[in-house]
Amino acid sequence: MAIGTGFGGPFSHQFCLEQLGSHCALVPPISQEEYVDRQQRLVEVLYGLGGAAYIAEPGANTQFFANFSKAQWPLSERPLLLMISPMIKNASESDKVLPKITIVTPKFESARAKLLSIPHTSGLEVDYVEWAEEADPYAITLGALPLFGRDGSLYVESSIRKFIPDGLSRANSHVVVLSAPSAITSLRERKSDTEIVILKCVNEATLLAIREVYHHLYFGIRESQARSMMTTALSAAGLKDGGCLTLFGENAALPHGRGTDKTLHRTDFALFDCTASLHGYYSDVTRTVALDFEWLSEEQLSAWTIVKSVQADAFSTAKNGTRTGYVDERARTLMRFAGGYDKYFTHRLGHGIGLEVHEEPYLRGNSDSIILTGHTFSNEPGIYIEDQFGVRLEDCFYMAANGSAIYLTGGVGGPARAPWAP
Amino acid sequence: MAIGTGFGGPFSHQFCLEQLGSHCALVPPISQEEYVDRQQRLVEVLYGLGGAAYIAEPGANTQFFANFSKAQWPLSERPLLLMISPMIKNASESDKVLPKITIVTPKFESARAKLLSIPHTSGLEVDYVEWAEEADPYAITLGALPLFGRDGSLYVESSIRKFIPDGLSRANSHVVVLSAPSAITSLRERKSDTEIVILKCVNEATLLAIREVYHHLYFGIRESQARSMMTTALSAAGLKDGGCLTLFGENAALPHGRGTDKTLHRTDFALFDCTASLHGYYSDVTRTVALDFEWLSEEQLSAWTIVKSVQADAFSTAKNGTRTGYVDERARTLMRFAGGYDKYFTHRLGHGIGLEVHEEPYLRGNSDSIILTGHTFSNEPGIYIEDQFGVRLEDCFYMAANGSAIYLTGGVGGPARAPWAP
Repeated sequence: MAIGTGFGGPFSHQFCLEQLGSHCALVPPISQEEYVDRQQRLVEVLYGLGGAAYIAEPGANTQFFANFSKAQWPLSERPLLLMISPMIKNASESDKVLPKITIVTPKFESARAKLLSIPHTSGLEVDYVEWAEEADPYAITLGALPLFGRDGSLYVESSIRKFIPDGLSRANSHVVVLSAPSAITSLRERKSDTEIVILKCVNEATLLAIREVYHHLYFGIRESQARSMMTTALSAAGLKDGGCLTLFGENAALPHGRGTDKTLHRTDFALFDCTASLHGYYSDVTRTVALDFEWLSEEQLSAWTIVKSVQADAFSTAKNGTRTGYVDERARTLMRFAGGYDKYFTHRLGHGIGLEVHEEPYLRGNSDSIILTGHTFSNEPGIYIEDQFGVRLEDCFYMAANGSAIYLTGGVGGPARAPWAP
Repeated sequence: MAIGTGFGGPFSHQFCLEQLGSHCALVPPISQEEYVDRQQRLVEVLYGLGGAAYIAEPGANTQFFANFSKAQWPLSERPLLLMISPMIKNASESDKVLPKITIVTPKFESARAKLLSIPHTSGLEVDYVEWAEEADPYAITLGALPLFGRDGSLYVESSIRKFIPDGLSRANSHVVVLSAPSAITSLRERKSDTEIVILKCVNEATLLAIREVYHHLYFGIRESQARSMMTTALSAAGLKDGGCLTLFGENAALPHGRGTDKTLHRTDFALFDCTASLHGYYSDVTRTVALDFEWLSEEQLSAWTIVKSVQADAFSTAKNGTRTGYVDERARTLMRFAGGYDKYFTHRLGHGIGLEVHEEPYLRGNSDSIILTGHTFSNEPGIYIEDQFGVRLEDCFYMAANGSAIYLTGGVGGPARAPWAP
């Protein structure tokens, strides 16, 4: 598959990235209609809850509902807020609520705020409400609420900075600010078919990039060199924000690394934990590879095989209706039966993935979330033996309408088959 | 001053950065003793308030009290918390409180957390308290409070993510979580002599870098090219995280830019708003320059001169005991008297600066903070006439023990003298 200098040789930037670069070229971003549909579903939930508005800072939630994030508007001490409120269309159609979008912006930056391209329901223009430097942005936010629902609660994301709900409560002591309940957060957690298409492609392209780089590894290469090859390959694949944890040998025994720049030895596993984005949606793929099986110890091979089988079991355990915590707990039990390896499996089994690399819901012990159609999860068991080695294998899956899991990497073969067949 | 290709010529990366690179070479970072002293002053305040602990996420506050920030530990959904609690030394010395440092860390990352180099009082080791993936990190945090003060309040920074105080309150309904009051936040706001030495040097070096690049500007250069020259110069000056808003002509009429990549024309001002860091402390310097005064309009020259005189007036207005809001309001009044220019001065006059580029207190209308020794402020009046041009001049100053302001750029000449003498 590889052009260039071939297996074991030094990295050539000409290597075969042409196919890789076109892999996701035809996958469209989220359409205006889908954004408006998300806003519509949000205000229907808000209307049912008697909520006055949903408020978010730039981040994954504004990306989901309004097509802008921190990339377009970095967080600063001056709040820029997205507010989405239910509005009654007209008196004769009293059951039809529509999403009213308001951007609360620093006044001196309002011209720049208006450059944000925010989808909205036809006929309901986006309102830009400005707060001057000497004014209270929170009082102005509350003043901009549509008449309907002024007495209702405000729902915010749980990752919002504390001073924002504090400011809203201070501006009007009757205002109740609540973290968005699952009826709201599930809108983003449960992916649509178009989101799944994007998530499949970004995960496939990430895996193809890992496989491509695998063919260019050689004994003596440094972690930093291999990491840089991975960054190049992810970028050549047309993905954004690409990067990999790249850990050799005993450095992989800490799941997030140790910070030295080790060279690859014959007896080492190389662990690549890669993420990148397409249209704002993230991949997360981990492969633990070896160049030559003859030098691996029995224990390394055995750990790799256990991780592989635990990953396969978790994949078939995850069904619609299953408790997320159970999937994690069962994986841990399997590790224990496999020879007491559960003590080396130190992190949760998986996380949701979408506009954030890690998002709700989680496959984690004690978690009571129920698996539903449209949920996405990483499936990433690992074994970490300090000062020796680490193994982690990670593929993400989504829950299909029939209640079963399907790998997001399935289009290019899915999970690793062996340390030399990633 | 400039070697290389000289005034008006294309940029040479060999230009005279040798002096620049050594400008801050002898400025030491914050010492272990100063960190411990900050912790000591914090627990004395906490003890006085009856507080059980101060809790912070990685960021400027952990940098201030414990010498690590997001650079060493990026925020994730898994909380890593710094907790500082007052501890009584022993029964016979009941008035002596000491700072107990606890790091609450994800268990599987505790080995990496222990690599953080956290200063602590001699004899009082840092405690690492681990939470396993399936555990409640907030219950574990509360469980780790020293016996003294378990009934007291917890103080958090106002920028903490909402789910952390929510989790602490949920773990124990008797726990009261409060935003840190000014007795705590002022510890970081009022700079020590050693902090001022660092802040002086980083602001001086930033200004020297702007002056150096000024000599390499030429008509026809693009904003992106000039911005890249500035980044190179700031890096050559030994500073980190360096970057400049670089805006030519009408692009500077929006204080934070418009996003096009304009070329420099004879009739344009060029605005550079630069920041960089030294030992974690930031500079903020803005210069509005012109290559040739013959092509500037009367209105451009007049606006530049008004901004310059408003900056000078604000500098002498700021005294210990002055209300911060007054300094801003007076600057605005002067702009109005100068010919109705207040309507073009669309942002606050200034902000605190230190471990964050923008931090409390602010020189902003309606702000009631009182100026005190050790406060630092940017002083950055501006005039922005849409579709025409923008002028901003910015130098930071600190409040000396005698109650007067001293420019942090004073060591290299301080404020600009003319558009061609930055």
